[in-house]
Amino acid sequence: MINYPNKKKTVSLTKLVKEKNLITKKANAANRGMDLENDINKTNEYYLENNIALIYKRPTPINIVKVDYSKGAKIVDAYFEKQSTTDYNGVYKGKYLDFEAKSTLSLTSFPLHNIYKHQIVHLEKVNQNMGIAFFIIEFINLNEIYFLDSKYVIDYYYNGKRKSIPYEDIKNNGILIKQGFKPRIDYLKAVDEYYHL
Amino acid sequence: MINYPNKKKTVSLTKLVKEKNLITKKANAANRGMDLENDINKTNEYYLENNIALIYKRPTPINIVKVDYSKGAKIVDAYFEKQSTTDYNGVYKGKYLDFEAKSTLSLTSFPLHNIYKHQIVHLEKVNQNMGIAFFIIEFINLNEIYFLDSKYVIDYYYNGKRKSIPYEDIKNNGILIKQGFKPRIDYLKAVDEYYHL
Repeated sequence: MINYPNKKKTVSLTKLVKEKNLITKKANAANRGMDLENDINKTNEYYLENNIALIYKRPTPINIVKVDYSKGAKIVDAYFEKQSTTDYNGVYKGKYLDFEAKSTLSLTSFPLHNIYKHQIVHLEKVNQNMGIAFFIIEFINLNEIYFLDSKYVIDYYYNGKRKSIPYEDIKNNGILIKQGFKPRIDYLKAVDEYYHL
Repeated sequence: MINYPNKKKTVSLTKLVKEKNLITKKANAANRGMDLENDINKTNEYYLENNIALIYKRPTPINIVKVDYSKGAKIVDAYFEKQSTTDYNGVYKGKYLDFEAKSTLSLTSFPLHNIYKHQIVHLEKVNQNMGIAFFIIEFINLNEIYFLDSKYVIDYYYNGKRKSIPYEDIKNNGILIKQGFKPRIDYLKAVDEYYHL
């Protein structure tokens, strides 16, 4: 094997470019994640204004360490905590709805590494109490957003060989959500179709 | 009228005693309010453990003013805000449940002064979306806790001559909740009875 004098530099450059792409991709994923959240919030506003449903975004839980009561209960030391339930819940046609929304850059699967055990346990509890529990999964690079009932995610979480759900499985078992202007992500149409509401 | 030399002092003492009683009563009300909250939380734990229902206490909303990112996202300036919705929501037999719990020292009526306009608007929205919305009202000095559908409270809020609901109206239109050990306040029995679940 010929040892090119600039091999190391070349590898290094490639690595740098790869890292840069990864960083850009990660930043994009975070942005798109925020876009998805924003689009769902706008959709929920539309549902509220048109008396279709009442869905809330749960606030990020905060662990309060210290409160200064000399200044009218000013919180002076506190930290954000991980969501122990899901991002959204609410009421639609009298039914209890509970869901989590996630974006992925992957073209082939939805990774489960950013779903926590206590979120899975929470969704199991919702199902046990006959609530409607699902995921909204966005494939950023495909510009596709899917509705997927939580039971598939729970099953993959406990029994899946890989810690991800293949795209084809989501396509076959979920419902592609129509994207538009008002509402932006009409996920309740998928809820109607799937649960026959 | 005879002007007793110590009249002023006597009045002052009476006033002091009255104030002391009021303060004690207020402290008791606050404590009992906490007791009611605590009893409902324990009841919800019982419901959860026995797969009867999944009911959450909403966290007190916090208005974050300043976050120090140099210390790993430490919140250094924040304030508690008033609850814009209600204290509790969740799922029971697939239905969406939403309620507020309040205690009063009064023997004759439930005052509405500590219920906010946006809470009333929120409960109207829950009703419009066919959710189950109600109040748990404790008459501390009677040792009675009532279930009352939100529509009565909403009606009194908008149309009532007084800013309170007479005890007799709550007794006639609500349901007395049985208090026990496990669960402490079995309010879902009243929900079953009232909504025929």
